[in-house]
Amino acid sequence: MNNKTEATPTSRPLIFVTNDDGFYAYGIRNLIDIVRQYGDVVAVAPERSESGMSHAITIRKPLRLKKISSEEGFEFYRCNGTPVDCVKIGLDRVVTRKPDILVSGINHGSNSSVSVFYSGTMAAAIEGCINKITSIGFSLLDHSSNANFAPSLKYVETIFSTILKNGLPRNVCLNVNIPNVSSDEIKGIKVCRQTDGIWKEEFDRRLDPYNEEYFWLTGDYKNLEPDKTDTDEWALANNYISVVPVKIDITSYDTLEVLQGLNK
Amino acid sequence: MNNKTEATPTSRPLIFVTNDDGFYAYGIRNLIDIVRQYGDVVAVAPERSESGMSHAITIRKPLRLKKISSEEGFEFYRCNGTPVDCVKIGLDRVVTRKPDILVSGINHGSNSSVSVFYSGTMAAAIEGCINKITSIGFSLLDHSSNANFAPSLKYVETIFSTILKNGLPRNVCLNVNIPNVSSDEIKGIKVCRQTDGIWKEEFDRRLDPYNEEYFWLTGDYKNLEPDKTDTDEWALANNYISVVPVKIDITSYDTLEVLQGLNK
Repeated sequence: MNNKTEATPTSRPLIFVTNDDGFYAYGIRNLIDIVRQYGDVVAVAPERSESGMSHAITIRKPLRLKKISSEEGFEFYRCNGTPVDCVKIGLDRVVTRKPDILVSGINHGSNSSVSVFYSGTMAAAIEGCINKITSIGFSLLDHSSNANFAPSLKYVETIFSTILKNGLPRNVCLNVNIPNVSSDEIKGIKVCRQTDGIWKEEFDRRLDPYNEEYFWLTGDYKNLEPDKTDTDEWALANNYISVVPVKIDITSYDTLEVLQGLNK
Repeated sequence: MNNKTEATPTSRPLIFVTNDDGFYAYGIRNLIDIVRQYGDVVAVAPERSESGMSHAITIRKPLRLKKISSEEGFEFYRCNGTPVDCVKIGLDRVVTRKPDILVSGINHGSNSSVSVFYSGTMAAAIEGCINKITSIGFSLLDHSSNANFAPSLKYVETIFSTILKNGLPRNVCLNVNIPNVSSDEIKGIKVCRQTDGIWKEEFDRRLDPYNEEYFWLTGDYKNLEPDKTDTDEWALANNYISVVPVKIDITSYDTLEVLQGLNK
């Protein structure tokens, strides 16, 4: 099996697509339908749901890569790894040139505020950004497998086509979240910042049939700055699509001076 | 089994310890030996190596939590989850009050530059920071299971005791990396920024006994700014211990203005 795509004779943009819900999810199918209009698409997606896998990589077991479908301008692969594995193996083993843009999603569920850290969708976008590829993660605030992406599609297309044309600053990618409301209710797009918030865990304790305890992770999100209007949580609660530019240099430059006493 | 620690009658600091190499690793044992001098310790660590798990959380299988040991001022648990799971379940189910400080490591292997994104060690520190706990991740640049932590210990203690006393700004934690050299060769501590770098993957392709291909993830790190002297990679290459303050608000504020055209 030769995983390399054929050399592209056209100058159409090369668009890399992935997600964390698996290759069969409605979200990635909807995203591919949009972006295919703008260029050649290579999609590499997990073979099953990898939600909550963040930036995990697979180092202790081998990866498998299978071609699902191939047609003019579109190749689709599935991989048994994480979303970041899909990006890494896709860039090393599938594409023959650097993609012009990477899109991840559309995720089934929110990745706003600190959820950017847990998100496999955003980890894939961040991995694209680390590789100096213009990258966007899209998420819809509906966890269900049959989520309705229709109201979001024209906004996804607007954001995608604008960024494909204009690019993004080096080492910055986008975290786009879409409220789960009807087309009429979406008020527009808001560029905003990450909300300071927290997931308050409550582990659900149970006993197995052998009287051993086990725990399920559950939790509720708490917005720690509910009165601020420049955050992604505010935008989403007010039916705006939130667009947060995300840095991959996560140094706190303000703190360098504070820590000078440690230097020796 | 009651996982809650007894109410502490003393005013000794409560120190939460975790890692990503597993409860049996030399690195966490060394770290516990240092921090125990400064307060009561609760350690919750993965039951096996969780290297490269980043900020992954376990949502599709139940977690188990087992007490390994308990003595005056020190309780040690292992958990079948990721490093971030260990922090979450520890905060919800083990401690009876908010820890004064969280330390993660000492990792067997580097977590400098963009490796901060793949690192389970740093994800645990970031999770502590999201929970508004002063948090530090420590890593030694030696992957081997029998790494020699001795030369690093006095520096780990200096950094730990300074931060325990002074704290850190809200929403900032520390990424500390230690060169793998002898005590004589360590030049000191340098507060610095995250290096712009990249892991260039080369997936190692093989055929299994059934003639199906599989891939092992391998790669080499590339420093994209080798001439800069204010980076963690420079510090480590010059035998300094690197201390990078890490933000959990990863918004690129500089980019908000650039994207104004998207607002509508």
